[in-house]
Amino acid sequence: MTEEPMRKDSEIRRSNSSMGCGSKDDKASLASSQTRSLSLQPHQPSAPGSKEVWKKGGRMFSILLAVHLALLACTLVSSGAFERIAVHDYDVFFLLTVMMLIVIIWIIFYLVSTSRCPDAILCKDSHAGPIWLRGGLILFAIFSLVMDVFKIGYYSSFYSCLSAIKIMYPIVQAIFVVVQTYFLWISAKDCVHVHLNVTRCGLMLTLTTNLAVWMSAVTDESVHKAHSKLKKNTTEELFRWLLKVGMRSGSTEACNCNSQICQIFKNGYFWLYPFNIEYSLFASAMVYVMWKNVGRFIDHHSHHVQHLKFKLFRRTFFVGIVLGLIILVSGLGVLIVYEVQVNSSTEPSKKSQALTMYYVFNIVCLGLMSLVCIGGSVIYRFDKRDMDRHKNPTRTLDVALLMGAALGQYAISYYSIVAIVASTPRDAISALNLTYALLMIAQHTFQNIFIIEGLHRQPPKEDHKHSSHQKELYGLTFVNVNAVSLRVPDSGSTLAPSTTPGSDGTHPSDLVRSLTAPKKINWRRKFLREISMFLLLCNIILWIMPAFGARPHFDNDTELNFYGDSMWPAIVDICLPFGIFYRMHAVASLLEVCIMS
Amino acid sequence: MTEEPMRKDSEIRRSNSSMGCGSKDDKASLASSQTRSLSLQPHQPSAPGSKEVWKKGGRMFSILLAVHLALLACTLVSSGAFERIAVHDYDVFFLLTVMMLIVIIWIIFYLVSTSRCPDAILCKDSHAGPIWLRGGLILFAIFSLVMDVFKIGYYSSFYSCLSAIKIMYPIVQAIFVVVQTYFLWISAKDCVHVHLNVTRCGLMLTLTTNLAVWMSAVTDESVHKAHSKLKKNTTEELFRWLLKVGMRSGSTEACNCNSQICQIFKNGYFWLYPFNIEYSLFASAMVYVMWKNVGRFIDHHSHHVQHLKFKLFRRTFFVGIVLGLIILVSGLGVLIVYEVQVNSSTEPSKKSQALTMYYVFNIVCLGLMSLVCIGGSVIYRFDKRDMDRHKNPTRTLDVALLMGAALGQYAISYYSIVAIVASTPRDAISALNLTYALLMIAQHTFQNIFIIEGLHRQPPKEDHKHSSHQKELYGLTFVNVNAVSLRVPDSGSTLAPSTTPGSDGTHPSDLVRSLTAPKKINWRRKFLREISMFLLLCNIILWIMPAFGARPHFDNDTELNFYGDSMWPAIVDICLPFGIFYRMHAVASLLEVCIMS
Repeated sequence: MTEEPMRKDSEIRRSNSSMGCGSKDDKASLASSQTRSLSLQPHQPSAPGSKEVWKKGGRMFSILLAVHLALLACTLVSSGAFERIAVHDYDVFFLLTVMMLIVIIWIIFYLVSTSRCPDAILCKDSHAGPIWLRGGLILFAIFSLVMDVFKIGYYSSFYSCLSAIKIMYPIVQAIFVVVQTYFLWISAKDCVHVHLNVTRCGLMLTLTTNLAVWMSAVTDESVHKAHSKLKKNTTEELFRWLLKVGMRSGSTEACNCNSQICQIFKNGYFWLYPFNIEYSLFASAMVYVMWKNVGRFIDHHSHHVQHLKFKLFRRTFFVGIVLGLIILVSGLGVLIVYEVQVNSSTEPSKKSQALTMYYVFNIVCLGLMSLVCIGGSVIYRFDKRDMDRHKNPTRTLDVALLMGAALGQYAISYYSIVAIVASTPRDAISALNLTYALLMIAQHTFQNIFIIEGLHRQPPKEDHKHSSHQKELYGLTFVNVNAVSLRVPDSGSTLAPSTTPGSDGTHPSDLVRSLTAPKKINWRRKFLREISMFLLLCNIILWIMPAFGARPHFDNDTELNFYGDSMWPAIVDICLPFGIFYRMHAVASLLEVCIMS
Repeated sequence: MTEEPMRKDSEIRRSNSSMGCGSKDDKASLASSQTRSLSLQPHQPSAPGSKEVWKKGGRMFSILLAVHLALLACTLVSSGAFERIAVHDYDVFFLLTVMMLIVIIWIIFYLVSTSRCPDAILCKDSHAGPIWLRGGLILFAIFSLVMDVFKIGYYSSFYSCLSAIKIMYPIVQAIFVVVQTYFLWISAKDCVHVHLNVTRCGLMLTLTTNLAVWMSAVTDESVHKAHSKLKKNTTEELFRWLLKVGMRSGSTEACNCNSQICQIFKNGYFWLYPFNIEYSLFASAMVYVMWKNVGRFIDHHSHHVQHLKFKLFRRTFFVGIVLGLIILVSGLGVLIVYEVQVNSSTEPSKKSQALTMYYVFNIVCLGLMSLVCIGGSVIYRFDKRDMDRHKNPTRTLDVALLMGAALGQYAISYYSIVAIVASTPRDAISALNLTYALLMIAQHTFQNIFIIEGLHRQPPKEDHKHSSHQKELYGLTFVNVNAVSLRVPDSGSTLAPSTTPGSDGTHPSDLVRSLTAPKKINWRRKFLREISMFLLLCNIILWIMPAFGARPHFDNDTELNFYGDSMWPAIVDICLPFGIFYRMHAVASLLEVCIMS
C-alpha cells in the first residue's frame, strides 16, 4: 500500500504549488504510472493518471480570468473608439500598460522558476512553435519595436500637453515585446509541470494582453482610416470638425503635429501598425498552444518533424515560385496605383478606373488560386500517405483559426452580395464586385480544404521505397497505421507504429512490385510543393493589400448606400481584421504544408 | 490476408453510401476490430479502426455547409431588421421556409432509411437527450404551435393585401415543429452508422435552420420591443413615422390590424415568442449532440445514468424548493408591477420607483444565489465522489454553452459598469444599477463553477457503503477510477471499472471503518440537492423577467445617454438573447446536477 503516503505528498504539493518545485518521488511514481499507461494505450499521449486532480477545473479558472479581462478591455476599447462616449484613449492605454507590466513580471517569474527547477519541463511539444513561426514572430517584433520608437517620437513632439500615460504606453510596449519574444523563442515548446495553475493563469493573462493590444491597434487603425477617408470625401465644414476630432488624441486643441519630423513619425507608426497587429496574433497563437500543453505528457516517438525543416527548396521546379512572384510584384504595382488614384484624384472616372483595375487583378488572382487549390485537393485524392491522427494542439488550433478567421471575409462577402443583388443600378463595377465577393468565398473554402487536408497528412518517410511498399502490401488507402497494426496481429509491436510498422512482414515479390512507385510519388509531391509555394505568395499579396490600406469596401459606394454610414463601416471594421489575419495565418500553414509534402 | 477484399468492400461502400445500408460482413469485421480495440483501450470508446476514412474530413464538409447557410441567413435577417435597408421580411421568410421544407424532407428520409436498415443504429448515447430535455422540448413545441396558430390568425386577418409567403411561413413552421419534435423524441440518442456524410449534412442543415429561425424570432421581437418602447417616449411626429414603419410588415399602408380579434392574435404571438425562441435553442443543442454522435461507438458499461431519473423528490427537506418558490412568486409580482408602472405612467417618479423595486429584488435574488453557489462549491471540496472523465459530447456542449452564453450577460454588465462609473450624476438608481451589474457577473461566475463541478461528478453508486468504503480503502480524493485500477494491478479487470471496481480487495477492518461514513455523505448530498432546486427556481424567474419584456436597460437612462441611441440598443439586442438562453440552459443543467447528487 504505497498510495497513502502518495496522497499526502500530492496534497502537500497542492498547497505549496505556487512556491516550490514539487517533490521528486511524486514525479517518479507518476512517470512510472505514465509509462505503464502508455504501454496500455499506445497513442493516447496524455495519461489519465497524471498528477492533476482535475485538469478541466484548473483550465476553467484561467479561462474565467481571461474572459473577464478580455471583456473589460473590449468594453473600454470599443467605447474609446467613439467620440461621443466619455471613455478616452488614455483610459485604454492605462489598462493595457498595467496588463503588460503584470505580464512582464510573470514572464520573469516563469523564466526564473523553470530554470531553477530541473523537473519543471519534462518534455517538449515538437509541433509547437516551429522555426518559421518563431522567425516570423521575431520579424514582426522588430517592426513593432520600430513602430514603438516612432510612437515615442510622435508623442514626445508635444510632450508638454499630454498625459504621461501616452508616452509610458509605447515604452512599456517595447519592453513587453522584447521580453515576450525572448520568452516565446526559448519556451514555446515547453510542457510545464510545476505551478500548473499559476502558469495557466499567467499564460491566459499573456494571451488576453496580446488580444487587448490587438483590439486596441485594430480600432486605432480603423478610426484613423475612417478619418483619412472621410477627410477627402466630405465638405469643408465636416473636414474642420474631423480635424478637431482627430486632434483629440492630443488631448488639447493647442497641441498640433505641424513639424515635418512629427508628421514622419505619425505616418510611420500608422504604416507599421499591420506588423504590430500580426505580432500580437502570432504571439497569442503560440501562447495558446503553450497553455494547452501545460501539464501534458508527450510520447517521444513522433519527433520526426523537426528534421524536415531545411529541405524547402530541394526538388522544386520553381514554377509555383515564379508565378507567385509575378503575381506578388504586379499586385504591389496595382496597390500603389490604386492608392494614388483613389486618394489623390477627385474625378469619379479615375476612381472607377482604379476600382476596376483592383477588382480585375483580385478576380484573376483569386480565380487562379481557387483552380490551384482544387487541383491540389484532386492530387490529395490519389495521395496514399497516411492520415495523421495524433493529438496535436498546434494543428487543432491552426485548423480552428483558419476556419474561424475565414468567417470574417465570408461575412463581408455575403453582405456585399446581398447589397449588390438588391441594389438597382447594375453597372460594370457592380458585376466585378459581385464576382470578386463570390470568388472570395470560393477561394477561402477551397484553400481551407486544401490546407486542412495537407496538415493532416503524415510527413513523408525518409526512404520512399519502404514507405510505398508498405502501402501496397496492405492495400489500404488513407488508413491510419494504428488500425493496420491492430488488424494484423503479427506485424510487430503496437507501441511504435509510426516508426517502421510492418517492416518485418515483407516478401521479395512485394519488394519488386514496389520499385516502380517512387517516381510517381515524387511527381505528386513536387506538384503539391509548387501549389503551396504559389498559394503562399498569393496570400502574401492578398495580406499586403488590405493591411496597407486598400479599402474598396468604402471606395465603392454600393454597400455604403445600401447599409448606411453606420452599419457598413461597423461590419467591415469588425470583420476585416479577421480576414487580414486569415491571410497571414494561411501563409504560415501553407509553409508547413509545403515542407511536409 | 483478409484485408484485400475488405478494402474493395469499403471502397464500394464509399461510392454508394448515399443509397444503400452498407454490407453486413463489413460491419461484422468492424465490430470485431472494435471489440479488440476496446479490450486494448478500456476507456477510449471511439475506436481508431472505425469504418470512416477520416472523420474530421466528413465533419468539415458539413460544418462548411452550415457556416455558409448560417451566414446567408444572418445577413438577410440583420439587413431585414433595418427600415432603411431594401431587404424585406418576406425575403427572410422565403429563405427560412425553403430551409424548413428541405429539413422536413431530410427528416422523413432519415426516419425511413434508419427504420429500414437494422444496422443503422448500432448503439445509443445514454447521456444524449435526457427525459427532462425532451420533455422541455415538447412543452416549448406546444407553445410554438399555439404561436403559429396565432400568427396564421393574425396574417389571415388581412390576407388580401399580403404576399402568400407570410401565411405560408407559419404553416410550414408548424409542420416543421411537429416533424422535428417527433424526430428528436425518438432519435436524440442515436449514434448513426449509415449514410454518414449525408446524415452529418442533414443534421447541420437542421441545426442551421433552427439557429436561423432563432435569429429571425429574436430580431423580430427586438424590433417590436423597440417600437413599442419608443412609441411612448417620443413625440407625436416620430410616433406617426413609427406607425407607418410598423405597418410595413403589412406591405401596404391600407391594411391595418384594427379588429379586436386581430389585436389579440398579434399580442398573443408576441407573448409566445420566448417559448419559440427556447424551442429553437433546445432543438439546436439536441441536434448538435446527434451530429457529434454520428459514427460513434459507445462502451455499454456506462449505462447507469438512466435509472436515476425518478428519484427527484426523494430525501429532500423542501427548504430549497420553498425558498425558491417564494422568490419565484414574488418575482412574478415584481415583474407585473414593474411592467404596469413603467409602461402606463409618464411620471418620472413612478418610473424610478419601479426601477428601484426591480433592482432591489434582483440584487436580493442574485446575492442569495451567489452565496448559495459558493456554499455548494465548498461542499464539493469535501465531496469524495470521483470525477467523471468519460467522453460525453452532451456534457461538453453543456459546459461550452454555459460558458459561452454567460458572455452575453457579462458583456452587458461590463458596458453598464463602464457607463455608470464614467457618468457624472451618481444617484441611488445608479448605485443600484452598479450593484446589480456587479452581482450579475459574480452570480454567473459562481453558478457556472458550481454547475460545471456538479456535472463532472460521477453519479452516486446504488449502495453507499460499498462506494464510500472504496474511497477510504485507496485513500484518494477526486481521483478517477481508471487511475486506481492502473495503480493497483490486483484490483480486478480494467475493462469495467465503473461498475464495481475494487470490490474484491476488501478487508474486514476497512468494512468496519466505512460503516460510519454514509450518514455524513447523505447530509452533503441533501444540501447539494436543496441548493440545486433553489438555484433552479431562481433561474426560472430570472428567465421569465427579461423573456417577457422587462428591459431596465432602456428604462434606465444612464447607459442610453452614455453610449447613444444606436450603440446601446445594438449591444443589448445582440447580447441579451444569449443571457436569456443562459438562464433556460442553466435550469436544464441544474436539474441534471440535482438528479446526479
